[in-house]
Amino acid sequence: MVSDRDSATACLIIIGNEILSGRTQDTNLAHLSGVLNELGIRMIEARVIPDVDETIVDTVNHCRQRFDYVFTTGGIGPTHDDITVDSIAKAFGVAVYEHPEVAALIRKREAPPAVMASRLRMARIPVGATLIDNPTGGPPGFQLGNVFVMAGVPMVMQAMASTFDQVRLPGGRPVRSRTVGAFLGESQVATQLGEIQEAYPDIDLGSYPFYRPNGYGTNLVMRGTDEAALEEMVERITQMIQDQGAEAFPGGAPAAPENED
Amino acid sequence: MVSDRDSATACLIIIGNEILSGRTQDTNLAHLSGVLNELGIRMIEARVIPDVDETIVDTVNHCRQRFDYVFTTGGIGPTHDDITVDSIAKAFGVAVYEHPEVAALIRKREAPPAVMASRLRMARIPVGATLIDNPTGGPPGFQLGNVFVMAGVPMVMQAMASTFDQVRLPGGRPVRSRTVGAFLGESQVATQLGEIQEAYPDIDLGSYPFYRPNGYGTNLVMRGTDEAALEEMVERITQMIQDQGAEAFPGGAPAAPENED
Repeated sequence: MVSDRDSATACLIIIGNEILSGRTQDTNLAHLSGVLNELGIRMIEARVIPDVDETIVDTVNHCRQRFDYVFTTGGIGPTHDDITVDSIAKAFGVAVYEHPEVAALIRKREAPPAVMASRLRMARIPVGATLIDNPTGGPPGFQLGNVFVMAGVPMVMQAMASTFDQVRLPGGRPVRSRTVGAFLGESQVATQLGEIQEAYPDIDLGSYPFYRPNGYGTNLVMRGTDEAALEEMVERITQMIQDQGAEAFPGGAPAAPENED
Repeated sequence: MVSDRDSATACLIIIGNEILSGRTQDTNLAHLSGVLNELGIRMIEARVIPDVDETIVDTVNHCRQRFDYVFTTGGIGPTHDDITVDSIAKAFGVAVYEHPEVAALIRKREAPPAVMASRLRMARIPVGATLIDNPTGGPPGFQLGNVFVMAGVPMVMQAMASTFDQVRLPGGRPVRSRTVGAFLGESQVATQLGEIQEAYPDIDLGSYPFYRPNGYGTNLVMRGTDEAALEEMVERITQMIQDQGAEAFPGGAPAAPENED
């Protein structure tokens, strides 16, 4: 279904017990996918794993061999449960050292010795890694091989991801998407969808049912790098919906007005 | 970090290109984790994978051997991209058949032949599977071995998960959590947290920094099955915060009032 001919591939490893326990809702996956789409990189898999050394090492080593890029979020703060740096270093078989520039940045803000010692944990970087700028002014992330290690706090992760460009992450043609919605059940469009998908094998066509106060229906989402093929497919989908006597909504079916009773 | 002595383990496989592309925000992980916590089952890993047969087969076979329970969401509708049922059957090496009860349920709602044919795809169940009730009235999910296959639409998935109990999913003692927050940076509590974690190895202690308009700080989250140990730990954490001259907030640090300028 997913065609990778024009784009590079990526995997996100979300490190954090708080996501697994249901306490915190991850939003980094959706944000990063959007950033990568623009660079012509497709998110092909994501994993949520606990703050457990062996799991991090195994997962990183598995994923960095299978995807062009691997990103991690979480576990790079100053506390006992922040073990990501050491686990990444272990996965690559390299040591960790205190990066002088990062340490200097951290020392700019005065603190009691015990607090400073904890904070300086965030200057620990694997040997051979290059830094990922952190525009919030806090400690940076780092890149080691094809693995990009970022903070888990969404504001900080988004700041780091805002520095990504085609120089650092050569990808491909941007991945574009088009959506057409209709108040038709999935089974009313299933047969035709299958035929249209077969006609455009390089475009990923998904159908997403919804159930809302103003009716149930389906949004049809097309994703790919070939803009001309995308527009052709939008026309065929629109025609197919209209042939059934329904209205086709570019951008997706409208939600119920908020003031509706 | 995660102690499993008192609880069973689970993995969630989220099947869906729309989650990976960033178009749709998953909420099923957080919801299901909450349901399982009450049954004494810990979510140990989650994976988001595309609607690709080989990936589904490999992931299911890998995970069902490593966790007590595996749950999947997504890909069980009537369209061409709904391939989960066939992939699960392939993973177990069994055939798929039209389940007479489910087919009868679907036939109750009249439809033109082509629409009915698509809809009946949702009556296809792997041989040997038992049904998971769907209180919304739609087609059911199913259980095959230790794998539970559910819809991806949150309303439907939540309805299916509401039928889970200790008879169907024997777990352990419920996993409880306590949160104490403070307007203290993570590095100000890091040393003491490490010591407290060592004193209670069976309780998972996480620290989650926040940055808000009303200040930055840290929420400390304790999770475990031993209620007495949890309460002891809450007291030690509270004392540690107060020793630093800060206020300890049971349940987590308060957000800024919404009407604040």
